[in-house]
Amino acid sequence: MNYHYSDRVPESDEDPVGNILKVAGSDKIISFAGGLPAPELFPVDELKKVTDEVYDESGRAALQYSVANGLPELREQIVKRMVKSNIHTTADNIIITTGSQQSIDLTAKMFVNPGDTVIVEQPTYLCALDVFRTYGAHLVGVEMDDDGMKIDALEQAFVANPNTKFIYTIPSFQNPTGRTMPFDRRQKMIEIAKKYDVIILEDDPYGAIRYAGDDVAPIKSIDDDERVIYMSTFSKILAPGLRIGWIVAEKKLVKKFTLMKQSADVHSDNLTQHIIAKFMGEYNIDDHIAKIKAVYREREGVMMDAIETYFPKGVHYSHPEGGLFIWVEVPGDINTQDLFNTCIKNDVAFVPGEPFYADKVIPGTFRLNYSNMTDEKIVTGIQRLGKAIEQTIASQKVEQGA
Amino acid sequence: MNYHYSDRVPESDEDPVGNILKVAGSDKIISFAGGLPAPELFPVDELKKVTDEVYDESGRAALQYSVANGLPELREQIVKRMVKSNIHTTADNIIITTGSQQSIDLTAKMFVNPGDTVIVEQPTYLCALDVFRTYGAHLVGVEMDDDGMKIDALEQAFVANPNTKFIYTIPSFQNPTGRTMPFDRRQKMIEIAKKYDVIILEDDPYGAIRYAGDDVAPIKSIDDDERVIYMSTFSKILAPGLRIGWIVAEKKLVKKFTLMKQSADVHSDNLTQHIIAKFMGEYNIDDHIAKIKAVYREREGVMMDAIETYFPKGVHYSHPEGGLFIWVEVPGDINTQDLFNTCIKNDVAFVPGEPFYADKVIPGTFRLNYSNMTDEKIVTGIQRLGKAIEQTIASQKVEQGA
Repeated sequence: MNYHYSDRVPESDEDPVGNILKVAGSDKIISFAGGLPAPELFPVDELKKVTDEVYDESGRAALQYSVANGLPELREQIVKRMVKSNIHTTADNIIITTGSQQSIDLTAKMFVNPGDTVIVEQPTYLCALDVFRTYGAHLVGVEMDDDGMKIDALEQAFVANPNTKFIYTIPSFQNPTGRTMPFDRRQKMIEIAKKYDVIILEDDPYGAIRYAGDDVAPIKSIDDDERVIYMSTFSKILAPGLRIGWIVAEKKLVKKFTLMKQSADVHSDNLTQHIIAKFMGEYNIDDHIAKIKAVYREREGVMMDAIETYFPKGVHYSHPEGGLFIWVEVPGDINTQDLFNTCIKNDVAFVPGEPFYADKVIPGTFRLNYSNMTDEKIVTGIQRLGKAIEQTIASQKVEQGA
Repeated sequence: MNYHYSDRVPESDEDPVGNILKVAGSDKIISFAGGLPAPELFPVDELKKVTDEVYDESGRAALQYSVANGLPELREQIVKRMVKSNIHTTADNIIITTGSQQSIDLTAKMFVNPGDTVIVEQPTYLCALDVFRTYGAHLVGVEMDDDGMKIDALEQAFVANPNTKFIYTIPSFQNPTGRTMPFDRRQKMIEIAKKYDVIILEDDPYGAIRYAGDDVAPIKSIDDDERVIYMSTFSKILAPGLRIGWIVAEKKLVKKFTLMKQSADVHSDNLTQHIIAKFMGEYNIDDHIAKIKAVYREREGVMMDAIETYFPKGVHYSHPEGGLFIWVEVPGDINTQDLFNTCIKNDVAFVPGEPFYADKVIPGTFRLNYSNMTDEKIVTGIQRLGKAIEQTIASQKVEQGA
């Protein structure tokens, strides 16, 4: 039969990034396309131990239905953890979600009517763009520099779009750029949000993975009128297969989130919530995060050195002090798809920049991931990538000359 | 600040059923209000064993990101399981969801534009109504008899609502009524769906929990033109804290579901998917379901006997052959809220019928659950309930006489 979909469903069945990951997944290709945490760092033994304890001590409770806003013990652990980010909150200000993606989805569902504007960084996390589009959002991308969203461009976006519902920002080690917004710019962003009376959705999956430089407190830490919906996740600091994230927001907002959450999936996996709460009670998760940071610092360093050695002059790239990603900008209006194809021929892959842009695409941009790769492969892969960039620039010069 | 919500957000923060469950949750009250499986039946030791094996054999894979449509091993187990319900399908026709609630949510998101009609049983699962309302559905309830939706009323609903997107039905041991639609009526339903070219969302969480009478094959088993979206869950046959359900549908529809699922929560808990796949590989889940059936049959029998003994004459109630619920209809336009209040005074509780109705409410109706209660408490509770019904009828007669 013919199915009559709602307006929320994309016409195409194509999943361009999924296709890239498939191509990049071939054994002989060194792929910097993914965004996976390093699985060798997952604390398997510790998780197995606490899981056994959950089964022994509260197995029947963990396997039963639970409350929509999340296991109280887990919310209490998150309250304690948030203090380290200078966010002082209570368990009633927290709702547990089935990962960050659901936090984004619930927020969009709650705030975006078709035609409402959502302001985003340009580029930004592509699966957030997908969600916002699903709910009919008008997306406005704000130009960035190495310090994140440019504040004058943000102000212009508000002037041009008085129907804006919220700003979506990943202020620390942004996906895809790896850039971090300095504290003074965060202050300016919240001033602008006040001036135009909008909320800020602060997505902070990577903030805890800082391996260089000084901590920058989340925007939520300077939120004096409950304007910021803060979200984070256990995906990068523990394990993404455990689909558990959280939102910190005003209590009455958390009540609304709870109603929407109940309607979305009743509650998040209860066994998993028990496992994580137990893990955080028995272990110091910061000790575990320290191991992640050490490995990612090493890998990012190797990638940076290789980039400096093997990339042609004039290529711009971010210098992240944490997180999982480096953003590359090849000058001269290079065709990113041509570059990608050349890379595949050279057995190396990345994610082209295009899907990360809400509107105006900057050509010649792409994202590199270093979290899930050995040092040797990073060097070999970057060497291949440097060669592919040179080849593509050369062939485009020939074409332009012809 | 003041938050400016989308039209999808209910104005009230009230959760009427949540409030009922809270009132009913007091220690001295015997509550038939919930819908919880019996936790003493959860196979805790077996789940602990297979979980340890998952950690030992594929811990890092189970803790890593996975694919949006669900773990292949789990989908293969579900293919095998579906054969027992006379549904012959493939792993590519299945998508794993974060429980039935998400299956309903994704289906509504994919098909319902604001103003589109969704036809439902009257009464039906109230959290499905919540979801449909969230997406702006126009809800049309179709009158039921003891055999489910009346077919002539269903046809009339289509004539009156040409913009219908789908029929939502729980054909076996329906929530809240416990009623089951006989096979010939299922055939008629699919004929009508063909005639008006709509899809059927078949929600089957309880079908496997039949403890009396003969199996009735799902509507999906006679779906010869891919018109039925079939959904089920591990909540009632294994454990609801493990938030895992599934959808069986046409392959191209599963592709669309996968895009929407990715945008909703990337994928369902991967550790839990591994645990259930392993459990189904090592144990015969039907042996476990047999234990559930034996206990529920016993409890339903005790409740039926108590109802026959203690309820006043003229009260109508369903006679389920499976599932978790009995539906009660007290004649004479009785005020259900008054009855509920009298029950609370008598230390017994149920869920009043009102929230289960899409539109026209039948007064004096309520749902009883027997799955999570000892025989002794069932007898005592039904005795109290019978008394409360008599008191309420008597007081209403006095009022009407005055």
